Amino acid sequence: MNTLLLGIGAWDPEPWRERFRNVLPGWDIVLHTEPYDRRAVTYAAAWKQPEGTFSGLPHLEAIFSLGAGVDHLFKDKRLPEGVPVVRVVDPDLTTRMSEYVVMHCLMALRRVRVYDGFQRERKWIDLRDQPQASDIRVGLLGMGVLGQDAAGKLKAMGFPVAGWSRRPKQVDGVTVHHGAEGLDAIVSASDILVAMMPLTPDTAGILNAGLFARMPKAEAIGGPVLVNVGRGGLQVEADILAALEAGTLGAAVLDVFETEPLPEDSPLWSHPNVTVTPHNSAISSPPAIAAYIARQIAAHAAVGSLENIVDPQHGY
Amino acid sequence: MNTLLLGIGAWDPEPWRERFRNVLPGWDIVLHTEPYDRRAVTYAAAWKQPEGTFSGLPHLEAIFSLGAGVDHLFKDKRLPEGVPVVRVVDPDLTTRMSEYVVMHCLMALRRVRVYDGFQRERKWIDLRDQPQASDIRVGLLGMGVLGQDAAGKLKAMGFPVAGWSRRPKQVDGVTVHHGAEGLDAIVSASDILVAMMPLTPDTAGILNAGLFARMPKAEAIGGPVLVNVGRGGLQVEADILAALEAGTLGAAVLDVFETEPLPEDSPLWSHPNVTVTPHNSAISSPPAIAAYIARQIAAHAAVGSLENIVDPQHGY
Repeated sequence: MNTLLLGIGAWDPEPWRERFRNVLPGWDIVLHTEPYDRRAVTYAAAWKQPEGTFSGLPHLEAIFSLGAGVDHLFKDKRLPEGVPVVRVVDPDLTTRMSEYVVMHCLMALRRVRVYDGFQRERKWIDLRDQPQASDIRVGLLGMGVLGQDAAGKLKAMGFPVAGWSRRPKQVDGVTVHHGAEGLDAIVSASDILVAMMPLTPDTAGILNAGLFARMPKAEAIGGPVLVNVGRGGLQVEADILAALEAGTLGAAVLDVFETEPLPEDSPLWSHPNVTVTPHNSAISSPPAIAAYIARQIAAHAAVGSLENIVDPQHGY
Repeated sequence: MNTLLLGIGAWDPEPWRERFRNVLPGWDIVLHTEPYDRRAVTYAAAWKQPEGTFSGLPHLEAIFSLGAGVDHLFKDKRLPEGVPVVRVVDPDLTTRMSEYVVMHCLMALRRVRVYDGFQRERKWIDLRDQPQASDIRVGLLGMGVLGQDAAGKLKAMGFPVAGWSRRPKQVDGVTVHHGAEGLDAIVSASDILVAMMPLTPDTAGILNAGLFARMPKAEAIGGPVLVNVGRGGLQVEADILAALEAGTLGAAVLDVFETEPLPEDSPLWSHPNVTVTPHNSAISSPPAIAAYIARQIAAHAAVGSLENIVDPQHGY
């Protein structure tokens, strides 16, 4: 019998087993915490599996991440070499990520947090010289599927948008910078910077004091704004707090953190210019993920094709 | 010499005089509060002018509103009959209105106010079953230039959108209901209802208890949401507060009020499910308005054409 192994270390695995039973009828769906026949496992799906979960599986054809990120997989030193690792690219997840990004760019533009403060004080105050979207430049760090979708929707709202990716990339209607020089170019010309890139050794800690200092003053929105929907490891939280104090940053919208859940004593929670959300900018619907993986398995079994294989050298 | 009369009762008129001097070189720009030659006035521009400002002007060709609304003009019982009243249709104003509408629909969808509360309590809580834009229906009351622009941008973000207008209307890709039956149809099928229509005798107080009771339960976003960016006279504020208490409404986003500025003792200021903004959803840039009016005057003087003339019988 075909067997799918679930290596789930962070969530309750039983609802996932149920979802996969629905989309892979006739398959045996096993958990890494229970006894199973290691020779029968042909595919695996994972979220924060314990080290070594996927070693010693002689017939393993592919490993699917249950989310867009795969850094949790590559942390596993005993990940079998040569077995493709596949990311979920779920249109639901993309849609939700763009909702969050466009919404927070609009909230920064329209000074929602400032007007919330006026409301708390029962003050009818209209800030003068409200900029419009075309006045506020958004820079997207990361121009994969998620970055490109957000770029299109931000442009539809009127924002000038630029992108940055590690490798040179052509995207219709968006200037995409790349490499170290390109990073400088986009940072110095973005009033709002949105980090959407994967966490790799090259990007760890990239959102730091040196980068914030290169952002423009963005006075029309009360200072430059950082939005991080990528990974907490991209940011240096002490630098974010210092930049907010110094006025180098006007505000930060953080969905991801160095430690998650964000510890209760983090000063980020109560900073008036920080928005904290619980890593939910782009939750995909679990049934949609299971269906996506089942479709990939069927295509691979039938014609050997797999989409969205991760390049292990680059980590995405 | 050609003379433009400014009938400005609510704002400092001098900056407006300066703007019109810039765009109408060679014209005399006069204020209603100072002496001027009534026979020389050929055009007028107004915002909350005193009653009778525009009577007794034998050569008056047209009156321009300095904003999108014209209800302030038609309140004037001595408004001369037969002189066209023209609304400003400023692309800046349209853009800003859509920013506000799309942003607040996204904020309702993504439960920003709920997550703000979690942040204040330093709680890492992820609400399950986050809907996406395609799950939440937005109904736009008013399908003029502003409504149509908002419809397109809401659709780009994934929301299903329907519209309502007094008269039958065809808009590409949007179902537009009309009349009393049509109002019932859109209200009962809108999780978020956005009032963008003009204030007329027919629409005064239309946002009332009876209408809220016909909205769907919209449980996925904590109850149905009312957004009013039209005019305060459209809404019955006591009914909004009662509906929020009863749970008939989940939240209200109000940019306009029965009395403006909103009185300091209004319970709307401190209601946890009400967002108050100071009638700034769509401020146009004053220079853009002056330029628009100057272009209209030039076209009218040259070929007799005027755009966006208000039908006095319908008030828009």
